[in-house]
Amino acid sequence: MTTSSAPQTPGTPLPDAASITTIACVGIGTIGGGWAAYFLARGYRVQAWDPSPEAGERVRALIDAAWPALTQLGLAEGADPHNISVHTDLAEALDGAEFVQENAPEVLEMKQQLLADIDEHAAPGVVIASSTSGYSMTEMAVKATHPERLVVGHPFNPPYLIPLVEVVGGESTDPAVVDWTSRWYEQLGKSVITMDREVPGFIANRLQEALWREALHMVDNGEATVEQIDRSITDGPGLRWPLQGPMLTFHLAGGPGGMAHMLDHFGPSLKSPWTRLEAPELTDELRDAVVAGCDEEADGRTVPELIAQRDQAIIAVRQVVEQLRRETGA
Amino acid sequence: MTTSSAPQTPGTPLPDAASITTIACVGIGTIGGGWAAYFLARGYRVQAWDPSPEAGERVRALIDAAWPALTQLGLAEGADPHNISVHTDLAEALDGAEFVQENAPEVLEMKQQLLADIDEHAAPGVVIASSTSGYSMTEMAVKATHPERLVVGHPFNPPYLIPLVEVVGGESTDPAVVDWTSRWYEQLGKSVITMDREVPGFIANRLQEALWREALHMVDNGEATVEQIDRSITDGPGLRWPLQGPMLTFHLAGGPGGMAHMLDHFGPSLKSPWTRLEAPELTDELRDAVVAGCDEEADGRTVPELIAQRDQAIIAVRQVVEQLRRETGA
Repeated sequence: MTTSSAPQTPGTPLPDAASITTIACVGIGTIGGGWAAYFLARGYRVQAWDPSPEAGERVRALIDAAWPALTQLGLAEGADPHNISVHTDLAEALDGAEFVQENAPEVLEMKQQLLADIDEHAAPGVVIASSTSGYSMTEMAVKATHPERLVVGHPFNPPYLIPLVEVVGGESTDPAVVDWTSRWYEQLGKSVITMDREVPGFIANRLQEALWREALHMVDNGEATVEQIDRSITDGPGLRWPLQGPMLTFHLAGGPGGMAHMLDHFGPSLKSPWTRLEAPELTDELRDAVVAGCDEEADGRTVPELIAQRDQAIIAVRQVVEQLRRETGA
Repeated sequence: MTTSSAPQTPGTPLPDAASITTIACVGIGTIGGGWAAYFLARGYRVQAWDPSPEAGERVRALIDAAWPALTQLGLAEGADPHNISVHTDLAEALDGAEFVQENAPEVLEMKQQLLADIDEHAAPGVVIASSTSGYSMTEMAVKATHPERLVVGHPFNPPYLIPLVEVVGGESTDPAVVDWTSRWYEQLGKSVITMDREVPGFIANRLQEALWREALHMVDNGEATVEQIDRSITDGPGLRWPLQGPMLTFHLAGGPGGMAHMLDHFGPSLKSPWTRLEAPELTDELRDAVVAGCDEEADGRTVPELIAQRDQAIIAVRQVVEQLRRETGA
């Protein structure tokens, strides 16, 4: 389903993202605490809510552990690791918050109630984003009075180091809220993917899950060990993926003819039993969409230029990883 | 099928890997040429065979382009990029060769005939490895007189930069040849995975293919664009994978309880429709195998220690990739 049919809410205007100073983190486990560390490093004040009596101590330890890394990547002016308060009263944590990041456990009923409670207490116009990795906002927003301001902002662990955030609205989310949220995360330094429809697992987790399930099948059938699976990635395609994703990787595998050559010549291998996942039919439309997407990503760079960039990246990545392994036994 | 039932050949002893000086590369396209560049960088003499009249010029350009990268990673003493001869006569290329790497196009009949021809001309006891990514040695060795010395040595592109090589024998391969080949590649500086059975796609390509097929389905269904798929990896899980593979990644996702906690608490999400690939049943046996494999890989490191190493790797990888992007527009 697309969000384009969602009703525009003529009501309260959205906040000016540039003037935001205070963010509420609702739930501060691994993901919520990681978000809190990131918001602090970007110079924001964080008001956290968590029902656990140990939450304050735990998030303190998480922020302290993350701070050297965040410092290494560069702090915003005025960033202060102690500019956080932890509350067990939700209304208190939301008081004055201009953006809310919800990070409760992945239990649908809990998310539904919590989002409704946040919606009740957050100031009008404040956007409420959920870190959910498993539910659609359409499912989660059912109890909220203002579902138009509820949106998914799905981070990757650890949220203070991995740039990716996937943004997608539910059926009742105002498309303006989806746009606002994407721009807001970008301004925070995130790499944002805005989806125009709700897909279970979003994008990155679907890809990761396909790989993970194939890996589990292989262990289950004695075809590979856990160690072999991990090393096949760390010492294999994993070295290419921080610079060039799976699509551009195959664009290069096609030689000077790129993805077009690759699909036209190796397309039949899609029928090979190289994974338990059936391939889609390689129609002309799919072929053309993939080729056009790669050309767009290549952005004028020839395959030899992309190969040179890939090689530089592999060398650099290998060198930093090998140095880390020597230093830490990683 | 396992190779343990293969007949031992009492005949010619295998070469002493340490005394090898000359390697034959049969077929010198992208993969064979990449192998040639790697062998040269490790100080070997290469005798190449290729039927194409442009092969010599093409491999020269490939080696020259790869040499700066190989120099950066460190050359063996006496390594000489010009220590290669290119032949159109197979017997000539094999004359004096002490190891053979076959890299013909992925056409079964061609591989079958070529491997038989190589077997006919290579000196007794010389091991003949195929770079095939698609066929089993059982299928390819059918015309050879000495199938016991034929083995798969599957590299990853580019073979001069990616350490991974998957080694697996066919039904008739001497297990001693499989062992010898694994040790030989390791001595060459490769990261070797020795498989005890023939699995289509081996390991890394199965995992990569599962991800790729899910990606194609998503494009096909308008769920994600090519650019979104690539960025979801480069700016997401791809940043973790050069140091820690998919298994260890989920070991960390389980918190202090590691993979055991992760499977016991999030196991049911395997049933979620997060990919088109059905998950295996999470039996006690599978759970225990995955947990034990992760513990073995962790090798005494606690989850917090692994998290600290992961974070250092993500920062280092992000920094080198971001620097490359600034410098080259990659």
